[in-house]
Amino acid sequence: MRTIKSTPARDGYRMPAEYERHAGCWMLWPERQDTWRAGAKPVQAAFAAVAAAISSGEPVTVGVSAGQFHNARARLPDRVRVVEMSSNDAWVRDCGPTFVVDARGRRRGVDWIFNAWGGLQDGLYFPWDRDDDVARKILEIEGDSRYRAPFVLEGGAVHVDGQGTCLTTEECLLNPNRNPQLTRTDIEELLRRYLGVSTVIWLGKGVHLDETGGHIDELACFTSPGHVALTWTEDRRDPQYEISRDAHERLRRARDARGRRLTVHKIHQPGPMFMTADEAAGIDRHDGSRERSAGDRLPASYVNFYVANKVVVMPLYDKRWDGAAMRALRRLFPTRKVLGVATREVLLGGGNIHCITQQVPRRVAS
Amino acid sequence: MRTIKSTPARDGYRMPAEYERHAGCWMLWPERQDTWRAGAKPVQAAFAAVAAAISSGEPVTVGVSAGQFHNARARLPDRVRVVEMSSNDAWVRDCGPTFVVDARGRRRGVDWIFNAWGGLQDGLYFPWDRDDDVARKILEIEGDSRYRAPFVLEGGAVHVDGQGTCLTTEECLLNPNRNPQLTRTDIEELLRRYLGVSTVIWLGKGVHLDETGGHIDELACFTSPGHVALTWTEDRRDPQYEISRDAHERLRRARDARGRRLTVHKIHQPGPMFMTADEAAGIDRHDGSRERSAGDRLPASYVNFYVANKVVVMPLYDKRWDGAAMRALRRLFPTRKVLGVATREVLLGGGNIHCITQQVPRRVAS
Repeated sequence: MRTIKSTPARDGYRMPAEYERHAGCWMLWPERQDTWRAGAKPVQAAFAAVAAAISSGEPVTVGVSAGQFHNARARLPDRVRVVEMSSNDAWVRDCGPTFVVDARGRRRGVDWIFNAWGGLQDGLYFPWDRDDDVARKILEIEGDSRYRAPFVLEGGAVHVDGQGTCLTTEECLLNPNRNPQLTRTDIEELLRRYLGVSTVIWLGKGVHLDETGGHIDELACFTSPGHVALTWTEDRRDPQYEISRDAHERLRRARDARGRRLTVHKIHQPGPMFMTADEAAGIDRHDGSRERSAGDRLPASYVNFYVANKVVVMPLYDKRWDGAAMRALRRLFPTRKVLGVATREVLLGGGNIHCITQQVPRRVAS
Repeated sequence: MRTIKSTPARDGYRMPAEYERHAGCWMLWPERQDTWRAGAKPVQAAFAAVAAAISSGEPVTVGVSAGQFHNARARLPDRVRVVEMSSNDAWVRDCGPTFVVDARGRRRGVDWIFNAWGGLQDGLYFPWDRDDDVARKILEIEGDSRYRAPFVLEGGAVHVDGQGTCLTTEECLLNPNRNPQLTRTDIEELLRRYLGVSTVIWLGKGVHLDETGGHIDELACFTSPGHVALTWTEDRRDPQYEISRDAHERLRRARDARGRRLTVHKIHQPGPMFMTADEAAGIDRHDGSRERSAGDRLPASYVNFYVANKVVVMPLYDKRWDGAAMRALRRLFPTRKVLGVATREVLLGGGNIHCITQQVPRRVAS
């Protein structure tokens, strides 16, 4: 595999939107017992259900440690490809590559520096060396050349519309636990170079208590050019209210790369949801890893869905709100089937379906 | 990945000859210190040289443990694909899949039971569980369906001409440390079913002191339909003399699947070669692993070469005999470039270039 010294923008590459055509999807198999309760068996069932749902719409590959290979192979459908790949945890959105394509249909990957969402300051575990190798290991298997970006970023910290616009948050990208040496202007310039965008829309904070430090992919996402889904609450006493209201204001004032105003689609959040004592009791303690305790509020949002070729796979959490969220996604993705998967177990680890998936765009000349 | 209950022959599949067209080649990265001296660094240089030579003629993928990933990536050429894959040692000819194709250009893989060349009786190390997973891990990455053969076999124990003939040895296939429950007739029938051949030609013993228990791929191989290369010596005091003479007799008496007589091409062996005290001193001792000692005779043979699409890659051992072997291979493979690589370091582990490679046939309708 070749590592290229240039940048995607200079070479004519851009990150396509998630709703553009995919060649497939990558996931990683969860196993670490200081993230996942009860030997990770409940969350493995949830990951298998997500993989099964996505693989009804596009090919899925799951990377798994040598020790869990047989188990993952047995729990996943035959049509899912299972390959040995070690990692520190299972968040391929964040440690995997961000794929970029050019107008001739060629594909490459951007390998961001990964520091476990905050390095030695706020990182969720130590070490994260295997996670930081995931992007290049995926690129080796896909046969795509690699850009090694010279700054810390996770895939979940950015969304694009595929037409020149990037959506992100100040809370995450300007946090000194990522790139303390870089200014806001520097970061905008790097996003332009590595994602091939021209416009960066900054929202403020991410979802309340999101342990990634405010990833955009829990808060809001493009559903098509000019359209953004935003997690929402009508409860003014909930700290999420002010966060979502501020995001809404910024989105209403914004213009995308083509000069369009954005239409914002509010999707009411579930819960609030909290970790139970029983759930917390099943999680190992480990020095250097984030402690997970009974009563912790979970950063639940319906916006953390995955858009596959023929289906949208969304988390189900809460009978009170699931139906409205599903109806909203059906309206926003009228050509796709919307599949819900019960993923409270994934949420207990701090993320959801978008965080555990990474799309591989199809090589098509445009 | 799908595991198929049928057999290749029943489904219309056959093993192509090594000299048919390839999609690429697999290797595994050597690291175990009770096989390879001096931290495996000298043999890693030899493997890298072999990978470089083959990759001038076809794509090469190298499987490597998580711990050696960075090192293998750094020591191998960029054009070689490096993927994480754990194993117990580096003999992909023996633990990897044997690929089969059908007339419509479809490809599948046979995953033989692997027992480290003799199981708890004569096996060269314990355990061998990761080796036995290699075939299916390769098939997952290649996207090919799998037959799990119900008996012990290594890829190095059989050669085929691609036209219905299999060449093997009694010493290896009839050894009770492989399949004590199977008769010679049973084994012939299984080779017909799993390799898609109609005729099995049995030679007697393999190369003198070959620790695999007499693999055909050190002794003899097809170089084209009707033509066999055979390792040879003119030294009547060498135990190899009687082995090669007997093989020659059997080959002269044999008819292949199409009723042809075989032309035998003798290639004089190097040496005899022996492990030095310095070499032996660099190898770890490990309970359950074969002990390697100063003065051990090494099973050196020029027949253990690899046929790639555009090149043949052969071992170089010994100035006295290398030139004659290379000239012979040039005559036998007139459309390919013959490249020699100094692989004494591989030989110290008990095999050579053919043992550390596994071809992936190209999917072409015939």
